[in-house]
Amino acid sequence: MTTSETQATDQAGYERGVGAGAGSARLAEPCRSLVPVILAGGSGTRLWPMSREQFPKQLIGVVGPDSLLQATVSRMKGFPGDWKVAAEPIIVCGEEHRFTTEEQVRASGVAARIVVEPARRDTAPALTLAAALAFANGEDAIIVAMPADHSIADIPALHAAIAIAAKHAEAGAIATLGIPPTRPDTGFGYIRLGGALDDGAHQIDRFVEKPVAELAAQYVAAGTYWWNSGIFVVRASVWLAALERLQPEMHSACVAAVKGGRTDGAYLRPDAAAFGRAPSDSIDYAVMEHVGTPSAPCAGVVVPLVAGWSDLGSWDAVWDAMEKDESGNVASGRVVFEGATSSYARSEGGRLVACVGTTNIIVVETDDAVLVADRSRVQDIKGLVARIREQHAPEADTHRKVRRPWGFYDSIDHGERFQVKRIVVTPGARLSLQMHHHRAEHWTVVCGTALVTRGEEQFLLSENESTYIPLGVKHRLENPGKVPLEIIEVQSGSYLGEDDIVRFDDTYGRCN
Amino acid sequence: MTTSETQATDQAGYERGVGAGAGSARLAEPCRSLVPVILAGGSGTRLWPMSREQFPKQLIGVVGPDSLLQATVSRMKGFPGDWKVAAEPIIVCGEEHRFTTEEQVRASGVAARIVVEPARRDTAPALTLAAALAFANGEDAIIVAMPADHSIADIPALHAAIAIAAKHAEAGAIATLGIPPTRPDTGFGYIRLGGALDDGAHQIDRFVEKPVAELAAQYVAAGTYWWNSGIFVVRASVWLAALERLQPEMHSACVAAVKGGRTDGAYLRPDAAAFGRAPSDSIDYAVMEHVGTPSAPCAGVVVPLVAGWSDLGSWDAVWDAMEKDESGNVASGRVVFEGATSSYARSEGGRLVACVGTTNIIVVETDDAVLVADRSRVQDIKGLVARIREQHAPEADTHRKVRRPWGFYDSIDHGERFQVKRIVVTPGARLSLQMHHHRAEHWTVVCGTALVTRGEEQFLLSENESTYIPLGVKHRLENPGKVPLEIIEVQSGSYLGEDDIVRFDDTYGRCN
Repeated sequence: MTTSETQATDQAGYERGVGAGAGSARLAEPCRSLVPVILAGGSGTRLWPMSREQFPKQLIGVVGPDSLLQATVSRMKGFPGDWKVAAEPIIVCGEEHRFTTEEQVRASGVAARIVVEPARRDTAPALTLAAALAFANGEDAIIVAMPADHSIADIPALHAAIAIAAKHAEAGAIATLGIPPTRPDTGFGYIRLGGALDDGAHQIDRFVEKPVAELAAQYVAAGTYWWNSGIFVVRASVWLAALERLQPEMHSACVAAVKGGRTDGAYLRPDAAAFGRAPSDSIDYAVMEHVGTPSAPCAGVVVPLVAGWSDLGSWDAVWDAMEKDESGNVASGRVVFEGATSSYARSEGGRLVACVGTTNIIVVETDDAVLVADRSRVQDIKGLVARIREQHAPEADTHRKVRRPWGFYDSIDHGERFQVKRIVVTPGARLSLQMHHHRAEHWTVVCGTALVTRGEEQFLLSENESTYIPLGVKHRLENPGKVPLEIIEVQSGSYLGEDDIVRFDDTYGRCN
Repeated sequence: MTTSETQATDQAGYERGVGAGAGSARLAEPCRSLVPVILAGGSGTRLWPMSREQFPKQLIGVVGPDSLLQATVSRMKGFPGDWKVAAEPIIVCGEEHRFTTEEQVRASGVAARIVVEPARRDTAPALTLAAALAFANGEDAIIVAMPADHSIADIPALHAAIAIAAKHAEAGAIATLGIPPTRPDTGFGYIRLGGALDDGAHQIDRFVEKPVAELAAQYVAAGTYWWNSGIFVVRASVWLAALERLQPEMHSACVAAVKGGRTDGAYLRPDAAAFGRAPSDSIDYAVMEHVGTPSAPCAGVVVPLVAGWSDLGSWDAVWDAMEKDESGNVASGRVVFEGATSSYARSEGGRLVACVGTTNIIVVETDDAVLVADRSRVQDIKGLVARIREQHAPEADTHRKVRRPWGFYDSIDHGERFQVKRIVVTPGARLSLQMHHHRAEHWTVVCGTALVTRGEEQFLLSENESTYIPLGVKHRLENPGKVPLEIIEVQSGSYLGEDDIVRFDDTYGRCN
């Protein structure tokens, strides 16, 4: 008999825990509004070499052509019943990923409010920024907070679980989706179930940290523990009140950051000084581990989610989440299996990847790095990345293809005194007005139209035309057209580092 | 008791087997001349993706910076004793590999006679071309025939074995080097030992084809079988006489091909029509399997070679032949091992290759293909290559970097209507005078100096200069300098295939 089984199971009971939070007065009012909040601040390397510090997992199409972020922003589409899902989800992301985040969301045809975290502070402050923003709207909506880097196969099942969770949230609980475990995984936190509710949900007895293997096996055998999915459904006011009680410093820092925030183009920028005062902590530690204890700020409910959920937390998990051929293999891109079994191979850089007689092997090929790992040892990738980072190998953190606010460039070849890049400029975008001390540049347009500034001149270049930018001459590249501009740039000079650049003017504020 | 133990062991006894061959009369004369003959006609794919039809194993630095061919041409340097080793080895290679063969040999500082086989006919005709050529010199020298694609670690031990073999060859035997086996390998032919001679050699009882596993184990257990190394030491006259008796058609075809041959720059070209009449066969089948039988044309002797020999016949054999770290791993190029054991990883295309927790895994990364194979399954690579060839994947037979008589090009990037190549032209070399119907070209010199012909003009371009070749204009690229010329070529057009080329003039005879 768990401690929480003695708690009342009626929903009215939730309210007593809410306390004196900002929005507690409104709990009696019904609420049918759901605001998706997407936590897109991750920067892990467990899916290296695809995910890197500068291009993390949520921005990658891990299980399909869409990135995980794109799949996540579209996940609430077609939500059933009489719930009203906000047209604009709130996305919280890091400064260094804001351009790609915005670009991907736009490509998905979704309008979103993108909150750029001034600093990394883990998930609790991120969710609090979103809650304060949602609440600032004047409406005490129900937040549906989802990590941007998970995959869920069965969307109707997800919607059904969220609808149940939202009912509990409407009544004042913090609801979370729990995954009934299929194996004693040590990579997840677990939720110990309290009393059963009549809709399949349970009260939360308590949150448990990632267990050791033996404990994980006991949890799974007991049948009274579910995995913590990281998906939370809670009224903005309830979250804010809970945080105010449990983490007053974080609460005031985040609320002040939103109050002092500003709009910057497509982005919402909370006040950096205020946000900087927020301690770094996860939703689980900051709030959820108090649920079910005497200090609980409100009731906690866990709703089961059986919907092909995966946190894609390792290449092994990716293999597990994908459809396999009759030998248990998963191929992505130009891959050939010859007598391979239970292997995952991915060709991302376009090379032909051939696996001969491999068993339980992960192969991930990218432009500049190839990973070959035993499926049982994928947790060591983290250590590997740390090691190559120590050796200052750029492959640890950056891709060969480098995203910029105006598009991207790819370093396709280099020698001692030259470097060749393919540069792709988004329609309407332009690079900074710049100059190099040590290199000249030859540009050949291979697709689209370029507007070139060279010294005092300005001229158009179209496909199959080229120009030359001598060393020391101010220049700018711009795409005035409606299709992407692609140029091949041959740099020639004695020093070819990215830091040989003097910026005179920049649309994206990169002059200082 | 083997049949050959009844044979005489004195060297004088060899002569009786020689028969009425072209050179038999000379056997009484002493001979101290050794002519290295390098059989470089191989084109296997067992080391794919490094070795390919168009760039086979002998041209690759499999175990070190030098290619196996380069290591082989230098192998007789410093041969001890009063033997006179010919300064110019004879190399027999295929038509499609002649430029690279010549270039590599020249880079090694060796002058060689390069015999270009007009067609593929296996090793027996190749050796016969070399023997006829050696004998045509007027001197009945001793041929030391070696495959171009093996590795031998201990050169003094090799020399000692060849010296013993040469003594037997001088007296009229066909001597071969045999490797005392270290495991029941089914990938080699075996030689059954006959009577022991007083210098460690044995008479050859008989040659045995590649055995099944059980038989191989019996051979190794018996201690009376050695591996066939493919290294033969024999007087030119003795070989020719043996062939004349056993394979008269092959003999006359090869002798006529050499007689009717011509010199073509650095190459000796046997008469194609005559050589075309030679049946295709290996040295083993055509001659050696008759040694020890009543039809034997001469005596056969096998000399033991314990010198770190490897035929590098598979990636597993390559791993076996290399020095390993304390975990049994072998790294070549930018490779990181994290908890890997008994693995071989090679980065040839410059990408970072990371192996995490792999055991007995082979990883070979090249510009356009990545192989990952279980060490126990490397024999399946042959089937893999056949499969991808059926799918018309270019990676089956050609490399991204394509060798040409004037240098090479590397296709570094491509899009729908453009292609970027790095072109490297050897000093003094020039491409054909040519024209394209469907593409224009932009050239930027990044190293060296180019002499450009464009329509009626001719001009020099040096580093950091560029030019444009419009569609339909005759042009030629030439390196008039002393250092390699490197240019970046951006091709732009609706069709970019290699076959859109009209050649008007070519130094290398490629106009028709």
